[in-house]
Amino acid sequence: MDFESLYSSTARRLQPSIIRALLKLVQDPAVISLAGGTPDSNLFDLDRYAQLAEQAARGQGRLSLQYGETAGWKPLREQVAAYLGGRGVAVSPDQVLITTGSQQGIDLLGRIFLDEGDCVALEEPAYLGAISLFKGMGATMLPLPLNDAEGLDPAAVDAALRAWTGPKPKLLYLTPTYQNPSGACLGPARRQALTELAARHQLLIVEDDPYGEISFDGPPPKPLLGYDQGGHTIFLGSFSKMSVPGLRVGFAVGPPGLIQKLTVAKESADVCSSVLAQAVAAEFLKGGHLQATLPTLRSAYHARRDVLFEALRQELPQGSAMVKPAGGFFIWARLPEGFDTLASFQTAIDAKVAYVPGSVFYTRPGQGLNTVRFSFCAVEEAKLREGAKRLGQVLRGAMAPAR
Amino acid sequence: MDFESLYSSTARRLQPSIIRALLKLVQDPAVISLAGGTPDSNLFDLDRYAQLAEQAARGQGRLSLQYGETAGWKPLREQVAAYLGGRGVAVSPDQVLITTGSQQGIDLLGRIFLDEGDCVALEEPAYLGAISLFKGMGATMLPLPLNDAEGLDPAAVDAALRAWTGPKPKLLYLTPTYQNPSGACLGPARRQALTELAARHQLLIVEDDPYGEISFDGPPPKPLLGYDQGGHTIFLGSFSKMSVPGLRVGFAVGPPGLIQKLTVAKESADVCSSVLAQAVAAEFLKGGHLQATLPTLRSAYHARRDVLFEALRQELPQGSAMVKPAGGFFIWARLPEGFDTLASFQTAIDAKVAYVPGSVFYTRPGQGLNTVRFSFCAVEEAKLREGAKRLGQVLRGAMAPAR
Repeated sequence: MDFESLYSSTARRLQPSIIRALLKLVQDPAVISLAGGTPDSNLFDLDRYAQLAEQAARGQGRLSLQYGETAGWKPLREQVAAYLGGRGVAVSPDQVLITTGSQQGIDLLGRIFLDEGDCVALEEPAYLGAISLFKGMGATMLPLPLNDAEGLDPAAVDAALRAWTGPKPKLLYLTPTYQNPSGACLGPARRQALTELAARHQLLIVEDDPYGEISFDGPPPKPLLGYDQGGHTIFLGSFSKMSVPGLRVGFAVGPPGLIQKLTVAKESADVCSSVLAQAVAAEFLKGGHLQATLPTLRSAYHARRDVLFEALRQELPQGSAMVKPAGGFFIWARLPEGFDTLASFQTAIDAKVAYVPGSVFYTRPGQGLNTVRFSFCAVEEAKLREGAKRLGQVLRGAMAPAR
Repeated sequence: MDFESLYSSTARRLQPSIIRALLKLVQDPAVISLAGGTPDSNLFDLDRYAQLAEQAARGQGRLSLQYGETAGWKPLREQVAAYLGGRGVAVSPDQVLITTGSQQGIDLLGRIFLDEGDCVALEEPAYLGAISLFKGMGATMLPLPLNDAEGLDPAAVDAALRAWTGPKPKLLYLTPTYQNPSGACLGPARRQALTELAARHQLLIVEDDPYGEISFDGPPPKPLLGYDQGGHTIFLGSFSKMSVPGLRVGFAVGPPGLIQKLTVAKESADVCSSVLAQAVAAEFLKGGHLQATLPTLRSAYHARRDVLFEALRQELPQGSAMVKPAGGFFIWARLPEGFDTLASFQTAIDAKVAYVPGSVFYTRPGQGLNTVRFSFCAVEEAKLREGAKRLGQVLRGAMAPAR
């Protein structure tokens, strides 16, 4: 049967992830991959999770094996509310919706707010999964340039919103803390100013926070949600980086009415997230396992960031600019004009090193050609150094003809 | 912030589940609930699942704790293909997509096929979760009456499709085996005829099969997917009833090209389903746990069906018609004209018995007012008898004024 003629407009817009396609080129174990963005599974405490899984299946009188409430496993909603309390944000469990990863949070928000053509304002560069999702929904995107390591400049955002002649944005999507891909972290004054701006422009801030707990200089900054006085912010969290991705447990936290609407949308999407996985996540928070495991993760990623940053500093061409991130998984670099990191990708693979061309994090093709994302999360230190060396050679070769 | 004015057309169409609202009325433990459709958690083999969860977390070198492929955990895709082989359908693992419950399978199909106004043909009465989902998407529905215990009549379906003047249906959604709510099971000749009809009308059959393994008279019939020669069928399976719902693991099985398209849609929706839960499901099939646990489930539900059917036979008003299902969780009854099971619902609750008014399984309000769904899945035998007795009194009272 030929399905092509039957597909919806969404299906026709959806594209497989470019990053996944790139990563498929990197099957050769000899390639040092600075491309992937998944945590290092060697850092997972296996015995701990095996025990948590057994406990979760056994606990609560078989309820973790049964269907659960769509809004989420009650003990987990309570634990998530308490967790956010620890980050300086007072919320109640009925402000929490448990999602199948934070990706589902973005998807459900898109569903309940965006009709085809509706507008989303977002940082640029931005998380590719969000760009793809908004494109799939047929949204209009208003990109807001990220020009420095302190994140979005509220004055520039305000000006861009005023100058914008397209449909009025409904959502402002951003990753204020250790952003993917740029590593930027929004400063406190800017957090305050952005929440005020959201109120003025009557738009909902979608605060995506997968990397918040992977902080290198003390605890992470207070979320935007904690600055917001008027219910203009929804916070998307995830266990994927602060615990393990295999749970696929995330959470959306915001005004109760909005959470209820999202819950109805989730019921239609998948009834509820894996209750077993939710019970593991609840035990993880309740039993103090976050505090017990975070120091190991933070110090390993911190050390790797230092190694890769120093190695890249020596290897990147003169005139390159890098952000040294205060957390997260990524180092973002802007090479001198004329470099095209997409065009150099195959040469890099041939030299047994991989990265992600920065242009994939832009909303339109042909932008950010001289930018590049390097990840240090899943590569040992010696290999980070060797990878940077190989990369230096590739880039020196790439620049030669242009000179 | 007032979100109402910002909501999408989907959000405005979405309604919270009627059944959930009804079930909230049934918090009183004195009420015997013939309403719920969740498996009896007392039948879950706790030690077995605790061990499987521990094994799953520990197995495969931490891969079950990591992000997984969007299409699904490879060992599970292989096991699901083998499982369908055992049901008489030869498929390869690349025809399998793992979903967050079979609800997500319906949702993803809706997303890739249905624009607002597009048409879905479906059995009536039908699974409420599917009706709500299609309504939320703004689909046009062509209801096909289920008139007997053998399921949809292909000749009547053919006639209905020819007579239909609305937009040409893209999907034919049905639950051919132990249907929810009617208990109907499509006969072999009808299965054959329906797949031929799908080819003639160029529509995709969506075969929802959550109850297939809960069969009372030997193994379940071969799925429609096994009759289909032209790739016009997609099969949606689930671990919720044959294993435990808490995993939230389902699967979609069909033509490889369609599975690829669904995979792209799933990537955008939630990246992948809980890998830990998928690893439990894979172990469940691989280790022979399905064969080990099914006999207990089947015999318990079989005995309960017999008890409730006999009790209802004695208690329902003269002129009622019931289907004695060969599997699944539900007995469907059509009371004499004039009964309104929605109107009697509160009286039933007052008499400490609950059911689901059949009208909620119809696409338009005001239909099937004299129908009712009784579930026997989660109630002990003595209580089933007592519940039927209470019900008999309520219905005799309800009929009195109309006479």
